[in-house]
Amino acid sequence: MTRIGIFLFEQVEELDAVGPWEVFGMWAKACPEEAELVAFAQAPGPVRAAKGLTLHADHGIDDVGRLDVLVHPGGAGTRPQLKDAGHLAWVRDQRSQVPLMASVCTGSLVYAAAGLLEGRPATTHWGSLDRLAELDPSIDVRRADRFVDDGDVVTSSGVSAGIDMALHLVARLAGADRARQVRRNMQYDPQPPI
Amino acid sequence: MTRIGIFLFEQVEELDAVGPWEVFGMWAKACPEEAELVAFAQAPGPVRAAKGLTLHADHGIDDVGRLDVLVHPGGAGTRPQLKDAGHLAWVRDQRSQVPLMASVCTGSLVYAAAGLLEGRPATTHWGSLDRLAELDPSIDVRRADRFVDDGDVVTSSGVSAGIDMALHLVARLAGADRARQVRRNMQYDPQPPI
Repeated sequence: MTRIGIFLFEQVEELDAVGPWEVFGMWAKACPEEAELVAFAQAPGPVRAAKGLTLHADHGIDDVGRLDVLVHPGGAGTRPQLKDAGHLAWVRDQRSQVPLMASVCTGSLVYAAAGLLEGRPATTHWGSLDRLAELDPSIDVRRADRFVDDGDVVTSSGVSAGIDMALHLVARLAGADRARQVRRNMQYDPQPPI
Repeated sequence: MTRIGIFLFEQVEELDAVGPWEVFGMWAKACPEEAELVAFAQAPGPVRAAKGLTLHADHGIDDVGRLDVLVHPGGAGTRPQLKDAGHLAWVRDQRSQVPLMASVCTGSLVYAAAGLLEGRPATTHWGSLDRLAELDPSIDVRRADRFVDDGDVVTSSGVSAGIDMALHLVARLAGADRARQVRRNMQYDPQPPI
């Protein structure tokens, strides 16, 4: 059983969180014996996301329990996190407990500030690539990658890239057939019209 | 000012609602003088979505106010709506007031049951194309289309297709440059990994 937690916070970018949620949710719904998905935040309850939608965390960090995968989304709410010693210490603590730390968009800035990306390849939203390099010059910033799988740390580029990263993780954790099933169920045959 | 309402309900599919929310939200955030986005439901408050995430409606149908665009997502929660005379009457009433009625995924089944798609082209999730034809045999079911723009009624295929439909609507309502700006900000250069 793979237990996946998506971390919510004030000013999280909606699709950063809900894109992976949908992918992992399709997996967990089809195969409840394989995967479980939880939404958690600093404390249980509502958070107001960056584009104004309110999302609800069912758990807080104290009661979320063991996780196999932690997804840290990005969004405007990551800016204060970069200077929040308590949050960065919590991220480092998660790093020592959770086998697979993933991020979407500017979530990787938080991982960089916490020291998780030292000497490693990583990416982020195109508008924050320079900031990622500034936060930790030892990072091998992958400017052209949709996502970067470095084993126990996986980062994605901006917003919608979390969907591709999550599908990749389903393939990695449960096989390509399962990922293809998820892709088909969410009819993910994107055709950007412009 | 284009006022866009995304309708939430119990067992709404998460990405059906949040994909378009992110697209329209990027537009509204960049150009608050052009667009406004609201999440509403039968009554204000939380709804539990189909993959277990709780989303929050800021408004109910009685206080949402004038809308220029209404987005009806799909999800397991549309099944009871197809037999809910009150909901179908409300949809017909919206049809008479809202200039642009859009749906994602199985949201179009609800539109079909309400009579909105009589004699018109439309689409839905691949798994519900036959059901769409059964609900109203006069519908010209477009099995291969990502979305179908029939002027005042626009329907999309499954789940992730709402993102493409919403980008198309931004282009239609505000021009291709604005839609490209939104696409770039959400880094929507999809690369399905499987």
